[in-house]
Parts: sequence; structure tokens; C-alpha cells
Amino acid sequence: MVDDCLFCKIVRGEMPSHTLYEDEEVKVFLDIFPVSKGHSLVIPKKHYEQIIDVPEEEMAFLKKLPEISKKLKEVTEATGLNVVQSNGKDAGQVIGHVHFHLIPRFPEDGIMKLPAQSELDESVAKEILEKFKI
Amino acid sequence: MVDDCLFCKIVRGEMPSHTLYEDEEVKVFLDIFPVSKGHSLVIPKKHYEQIIDVPEEEMAFLKKLPEISKKLKEVTEATGLNVVQSNGKDAGQVIGHVHFHLIPRFPEDGIMKLPAQSELDESVAKEILEKFKI
Repeated sequence: MVDDCLFCKIVRGEMPSHTLYEDEEVKVFLDIFPVSKGHSLVIPKKHYEQIIDVPEEEMAFLKKLPEISKKLKEVTEATGLNVVQSNGKDAGQVIGHVHFHLIPRFPEDGIMKLPAQSELDESVAKEILEKFKI
Repeated sequence: MVDDCLFCKIVRGEMPSHTLYEDEEVKVFLDIFPVSKGHSLVIPKKHYEQIIDVPEEEMAFLKKLPEISKKLKEVTEATGLNVVQSNGKDAGQVIGHVHFHLIPRFPEDGIMKLPAQSELDESVAKEILEKFKI
């Protein structure tokens, strides 16, 4: 828990939220600035700033994601759904507490599209593969 | 496993991929049409079409996401990272096998931005909360 974190305040009940679901690990609530009907946020109750900060064993906070997504689609009658999580200012992260956006999508809503892509450059692939070791 | 699924073919080794990581549950490989340097896909080895189809206990395929994200940021020297998962044609899903995009981000790359948002309408919130029961 971090004193001045908006989402920690929501977890502690010091700030109101429209809560759709919660258990010991996770809280799901409506985004107060939705990009579509039912736009919600899925957050771990424990405070981690970015996805890279979450310990492996704590990733279980996402285990209800399928059930929550299914219910959200039903309730909003959405025909599609995006799950989006942003890390760092350059990726569009505003609140420094890990959150997954659930964005219900509807036919031709034009909400989100990945930009045009060009084919992978084999020299770039080789460079990344050489450096990537886990 | 589904015979004609491109990602199942990659899992079975019938199609080549630039594999960054794999274990019993998950495979991580470079997207062949990257939107940024290091754009990768994280997929469960088992075939599920959409996130709503993944059984709760199988969501463990994401447990390595923090470690993989960290390594990918290091290797690409990215300053940010987006995690994006799309369900259904209306959400931009092209391949019918659950996949999480890992998109390294760089200062002012303009790759992905959620659209302008307006404040949550309380009547809509009420409607969703009334219907949403898990």
C-alpha cells in the first residue's frame, strides 16, 4: 500500500469506486473516464507500479480475468473486448499502480487500432534473440 | 491443439518462429509484423480462441509476464511497454488463438493512444453494476 496512490486509496475504501468484483487479490471497477460502455480496470490489491514489478506468484490476481471479461461482455452486449495494460509515461501510463483496462468493443467503434506494420527485419530479430536470455 | 491454427502450428514446431522463451505452458516469440522493435506475442500453448475461453487454472501461463517484459525492455532499451490482448474481430483480433502483444514503447513514438475520454455517466454505471454479478 502506498499512501498517496489513487488506486491504493480505492483498495482501502478511502476513495469511492464502482466496484464490479473483488476478492483478496484483485479489485475490478469502472473507469471514471471510459472510452466505451463498461470500460473497467482490473488491479492487484497490492501496490506495484509496473508489470515488471509484480512477483511471479502475485500474477494470480489475473486468474479471474476470463470470468470477469465474459460477464462484462454479457452485461454491455459488446461484440469484442480489448485488454490493455500500459507501463511508463511513454506507454501512456497515468496512475502508477498496475492496472489492466478492459475495453468493451462494438462494431466499427473505431476506438483502438494498432498502427500499420511492416514485416520483421531478420537482422533485428537476430539481434534481439542473441540478447534475450531468461 | 487445432490443426489449422497458425499459433498451434508454431507451438508444434510446424511453423517457424523467433522464440524468445517457452516452457510447458507458454510460448513467447517475435511478431512477424512488428509495430515497434521487439514487438512480441505471449501465447498459451493450449488452444483457446478468446480470453473468456481460458479456464481459471490455465491463466498461470501469464505468470512469467513480468520477467519477460523486464527482459524485453532491457534488450530493446524501451522506455515503456504496452500489453495488449484483443478478443473478436471488432476488437482487432486476427488470429483465433489467445495472444498478448508485448509492445515496447519509445519516447514520442506515437504508436498507440486510447481515445479522448469523457466522464462516466452515473446512470450507465448504475445499469452495469446492477447487471454485473459474479
